[in-house]
Amino acid sequence: LTFASDNWAGASTRVMEALGNASAGDAPAYGGDAFTARAKALLADTFEHEVAAFFVATGSAANALCLSAFSRPAGVVFGAMDAHIARDEAAAPFLLAPGTTFHAVEGPDGRIGPEELSEALCYYPPGVVHHGQATAVSLTNVNEFGQCYTPDETAAVADVAKRRGLRVHLDGARFSNALAFTGATPADLTWRAGVDAVSLGLTKTGGWCAEVAVFFDPAVAEDVAYRHKQAAQLFSKNRFAAAQVIALLEDGHALTLAAHANAMGHRLAEAVAAAPDAALVLPTQSNEVFAWLSPAAARRLEAAGYPVRTWLPHTRRLPPPPDPAWTMARFVASFRTREEDVDRFAATLAAPAAAPA
Amino acid sequence: LTFASDNWAGASTRVMEALGNASAGDAPAYGGDAFTARAKALLADTFEHEVAAFFVATGSAANALCLSAFSRPAGVVFGAMDAHIARDEAAAPFLLAPGTTFHAVEGPDGRIGPEELSEALCYYPPGVVHHGQATAVSLTNVNEFGQCYTPDETAAVADVAKRRGLRVHLDGARFSNALAFTGATPADLTWRAGVDAVSLGLTKTGGWCAEVAVFFDPAVAEDVAYRHKQAAQLFSKNRFAAAQVIALLEDGHALTLAAHANAMGHRLAEAVAAAPDAALVLPTQSNEVFAWLSPAAARRLEAAGYPVRTWLPHTRRLPPPPDPAWTMARFVASFRTREEDVDRFAATLAAPAAAPA
Amino acid sequence: LTFASDNWAGASTRVMEALGNASAGDAPAYGGDAFTARAKALLADTFEHEVAAFFVATGSAANALCLSAFSRPAGVVFGAMDAHIARDEAAAPFLLAPGTTFHAVEGPDGRIGPEELSEALCYYPPGVVHHGQATAVSLTNVNEFGQCYTPDETAAVADVAKRRGLRVHLDGARFSNALAFTGATPADLTWRAGVDAVSLGLTKTGGWCAEVAVFFDPAVAEDVAYRHKQAAQLFSKNRFAAAQVIALLEDGHALTLAAHANAMGHRLAEAVAAAPDAALVLPTQSNEVFAWLSPAAARRLEAAGYPVRTWLPHTRRLPPPPDPAWTMARFVASFRTREEDVDRFAATLAAPAAAPA
Amino acid sequence: LTFASDNWAGASTRVMEALGNASAGDAPAYGGDAFTARAKALLADTFEHEVAAFFVATGSAANALCLSAFSRPAGVVFGAMDAHIARDEAAAPFLLAPGTTFHAVEGPDGRIGPEELSEALCYYPPGVVHHGQATAVSLTNVNEFGQCYTPDETAAVADVAKRRGLRVHLDGARFSNALAFTGATPADLTWRAGVDAVSLGLTKTGGWCAEVAVFFDPAVAEDVAYRHKQAAQLFSKNRFAAAQVIALLEDGHALTLAAHANAMGHRLAEAVAAAPDAALVLPTQSNEVFAWLSPAAARRLEAAGYPVRTWLPHTRRLPPPPDPAWTMARFVASFRTREEDVDRFAATLAAPAAAPA
Repeated sequence: LTFASDNWAGASTRVMEALGNASAGDAPAYGGDAFTARAKALLADTFEHEVAAFFVATGSAANALCLSAFSRPAGVVFGAMDAHIARDEAAAPFLLAPGTTFHAVEGPDGRIGPEELSEALCYYPPGVVHHGQATAVSLTNVNEFGQCYTPDETAAVADVAKRRGLRVHLDGARFSNALAFTGATPADLTWRAGVDAVSLGLTKTGGWCAEVAVFFDPAVAEDVAYRHKQAAQLFSKNRFAAAQVIALLEDGHALTLAAHANAMGHRLAEAVAAAPDAALVLPTQSNEVFAWLSPAAARRLEAAGYPVRTWLPHTRRLPPPPDPAWTMARFVASFRTREEDVDRFAATLAAPAAAPA
Repeated sequence: LTFASDNWAGASTRVMEALGNASAGDAPAYGGDAFTARAKALLADTFEHEVAAFFVATGSAANALCLSAFSRPAGVVFGAMDAHIARDEAAAPFLLAPGTTFHAVEGPDGRIGPEELSEALCYYPPGVVHHGQATAVSLTNVNEFGQCYTPDETAAVADVAKRRGLRVHLDGARFSNALAFTGATPADLTWRAGVDAVSLGLTKTGGWCAEVAVFFDPAVAEDVAYRHKQAAQLFSKNRFAAAQVIALLEDGHALTLAAHANAMGHRLAEAVAAAPDAALVLPTQSNEVFAWLSPAAARRLEAAGYPVRTWLPHTRRLPPPPDPAWTMARFVASFRTREEDVDRFAATLAAPAAAPA
Repeated sequence: LTFASDNWAGASTRVMEALGNASAGDAPAYGGDAFTARAKALLADTFEHEVAAFFVATGSAANALCLSAFSRPAGVVFGAMDAHIARDEAAAPFLLAPGTTFHAVEGPDGRIGPEELSEALCYYPPGVVHHGQATAVSLTNVNEFGQCYTPDETAAVADVAKRRGLRVHLDGARFSNALAFTGATPADLTWRAGVDAVSLGLTKTGGWCAEVAVFFDPAVAEDVAYRHKQAAQLFSKNRFAAAQVIALLEDGHALTLAAHANAMGHRLAEAVAAAPDAALVLPTQSNEVFAWLSPAAARRLEAAGYPVRTWLPHTRRLPPPPDPAWTMARFVASFRTREEDVDRFAATLAAPAAAPA
Repeated sequence: LTFASDNWAGASTRVMEALGNASAGDAPAYGGDAFTARAKALLADTFEHEVAAFFVATGSAANALCLSAFSRPAGVVFGAMDAHIARDEAAAPFLLAPGTTFHAVEGPDGRIGPEELSEALCYYPPGVVHHGQATAVSLTNVNEFGQCYTPDETAAVADVAKRRGLRVHLDGARFSNALAFTGATPADLTWRAGVDAVSLGLTKTGGWCAEVAVFFDPAVAEDVAYRHKQAAQLFSKNRFAAAQVIALLEDGHALTLAAHANAMGHRLAEAVAAAPDAALVLPTQSNEVFAWLSPAAARRLEAAGYPVRTWLPHTRRLPPPPDPAWTMARFVASFRTREEDVDRFAATLAAPAAAPA
């Protein structure tokens, strides 16, 4: 167990059982099956709202589908400086809506600052064709530095967006972790706060391939259905995708898994905080821990088999490292992380002498 | 069991076991895992050739990835009149390579006629910018009417293409069925016959989500890797996709499943041929049976729970129906089809009096 | 003078004067000037309808702008077998609306047959995502074989389209010639017959660069304005484009020029009809003449300096040549063609003995 | 005369004469004419290098054509914080190469800093598909704040780019002004310094529509020709575009016009520097003057008919205003600006009491 990412884990036992059960018998292809219908109903229940839902292969696909649904000619999408949609998806969301561009907005702890969003919008006066038209804002919860938006923080961003007629998208690759941390309901963190569409990511939570683009306005569904197909994201045997979503939504399974991952994240954070030559970048809120590591600390971890990738943030607002030679790294707990896994990591990080073993 | 399509079946037992085994432990994300490496090695073995392979969610994605790799500005892709890439994928392959268009080519039994391809190329003299530039030809094996290309037939098309500098793509959504029918090796039906890239479809054969874009020129891999990610087709937990491919390629599992499906297809064809008011459109070669149905025959099947969708071919070269009132329908056997399933269908189709029961 | 095309002619004297006059003094860029305002007013007068108008560099740009305004995900545009948008613009209209595809519709004399359009629409049942969604029909008037649609013929096509909720586009690269032939008003040939947008081509008529995308629903203007800019078609010194349009619309100048070109086209047609080894493909209606030429006739013309390009129609509905060895060629008169130019051509075509001189 | 922009001026007398002369007689369409050949030869002479040249309608089109020629999947283009291609062209360059994105690089005076470019490239390690692949750098000379790159400064940026295999593009919307200021030759400021393609803008210099995409590697021409057509930028009557380019290149006409505009720009700068409540943002190098204006100064100019648009830079590196209430504005001289025009402006700016008149 490496803490490299939560997508290094497999799928939860329940999910694997659900996959097995889904395989029996014939079922209509392309989402015409009973599993898909059941998953959509569960999504509506979960969000306490009518939804149009599209099952896709990757989080990038969900983001692309959501954002393309809101696209307009020369559209501009606003997001955080390190927004995954802009930095880590090879521009997938901008390929599905060609001609759309991204405007990065600064804010605290990698979040979008509402005032900074307001200022950014000044670059795009309505009707001035040269700069493009502001069409959507996308926030990530849990964000790219493991931080969560509360419902109020979400609404603060959405309010600025709505005043300018922008649609609001939520990249929820680790949405369950945000729910677990904030204690808010899915509805509170989305449509009640002004969110129009969610990329609901359940793969990292415990699925193998369980990503859904969720829209709260069913009127978009007609066109999105065509785009979903055109994006080559409509599974022929969608029941297998739906079965995973069902397994994760029923009985709050995803929430249980995420709460565990968050707890392990906090345990990891304690290990970082306790180490002599490492430090937390930000207080840990979810299952992601961002750490400053001394070169020696990084070497100890690498030597013990923990991959350490240097993180290069785009935001200029993170607290500086305790020492300029220290670099940023990320460690992520998953639903499968055990206390002893963290403790072994902690021992490695804490005990320079023990690391080479 | 409905014979609506082979993607109405679940996944084979072996595939489901492989999925279960793949879930254990941590593994690098995004294809850096051992399952992916093993699947790639098996693909190279299977094709007896070095390959660059990309796992994707759907056959449309594989087609799109292959064709976009060969795209050039104002590119024109040639394919059969009813090519799946042009008629059934909501233009997915043309979204991933924007500005690429499709030119339909007639031929026998829904195949691309080499002479007709030659004639079609006359519309695109090299250097005449107005019409676009001919860049690739795509053939489907098994084709859209259940017919197979032999290695020689493949080469006949590829030769015309190569003389004009076009790349050759094979849509192999049912490639295993073509292998089973022709008795040819994967190499014979692809690169030895001039094919540059294959969309290897193993979902219909017995996977749940087992599609691979296979290139025989590894030099394309660098750019395709970026496009693969940008197309939102790079699974984070790719080991689950790879595990299915391994299960299907090892011990010729896919070939075994396809041979069974083909046999059931032939049994279906006998049922159609024997029926008083139905007839085969073409001699059956694979697991797909195309039938002319009288209105009464269609009603009998529908009443017995067999969905009957009217097929509207684009090609004008299929033999006409025995009666102008008869419509075309498709029935597909899968790896799961049992003889008794076919026999029940045959009884329904054969016995008008028994159908309403 | 070669009759190769009407875009081989320069610009009319009035247009050149207008260009000269437009150059004086400062004027707001990007269409904020008085010339642009005047041209837009004249367009509204000409069409007897409120319009949103966008000046562009080429007819392809006008077509692309019009069709992209009507685009929806996985959209399908219907047009004649030889539609310029599909055959001669390197897919420009399909680049500006990525993922849009073209469905060719047969009909008489290269026109769209309303019944054939009806049948084509059967391939795209609403809500079936696999095939794409029918979004627009595009007709060309004068069409690609020099034939005109009357208002009734236009309405017959538009009616089929409207019943399925499609938008109707008119490629009017030679719209003035259609007006001159049919005697209809611009309104009769467009919005009164169900047309939603027109690519108004005035370059071939007598401008140097005078193409306008005209929409009858001003509500589209907001988004189209951004797309116009994003398509890199918004002239900074738009007054020069507008001045040409003004010169051509005022006092019916374009209509006068087109009527002359049509008359010269008819004179050309007489020359073809009178020649011993040439024949008209269709009765000539406009300034374009399509001729069957014997190899000898083609050689005579080439020898006398008339470029003869072999025409390869996509439609299968044109009358066959008198002799299978004869090939199709096109000759086009322009506003500048003089009777003596035609007569010299006629003499060349008529008199085999004289040709080698 | 307003100093709003140099594209508010018409065309030079020589250009208008050239347009008039170009209109006579028949000429092959789509650039097959003698004017186009002559213009291409002059471009090769001007740059002292073999070139592939494409005439387009707008500077955005030239930029889009150049950058799309260098595009690769998930490509990333680097440019200055305020690069016109990213901020003022409604993403036109990113529509023509869908999926390409922009990475803004800080630097002095709105230029690209070579070290900052080096740092930016660290975000895109080769082979890491998630972030995209670095493909090109684009610099603007004269840049977006009226500043010029010398040959050495150009090479400093190009060198960083070349070491990573990037192609180098020059947005030369005001290239003649840069030549006039630096005294460098066109070759020195382009290919000798590592530039691969230039958007040569002659519209602002004195044409009405005279923009050319110039490539120094003729091997790209084959594909670019198709893209040029597909971008709807291939003029049918290209001789009129070519004639303008000829008029501007012959006898150094463009350089003469640009030198005059630069001189008037310096005179404008003196007016700004001399005003009691205005100040230069940067030392003026070309025909563009960036000024800090007090609210009162802005009001005086507006009252006298000079449009004052507030400029919102993206770069954070410009010197701050003398007073936080002062805003940034731009004034541009053109080939047509006379000394008395500047002096009237200077008087307005200098003399508060006189302004209301």
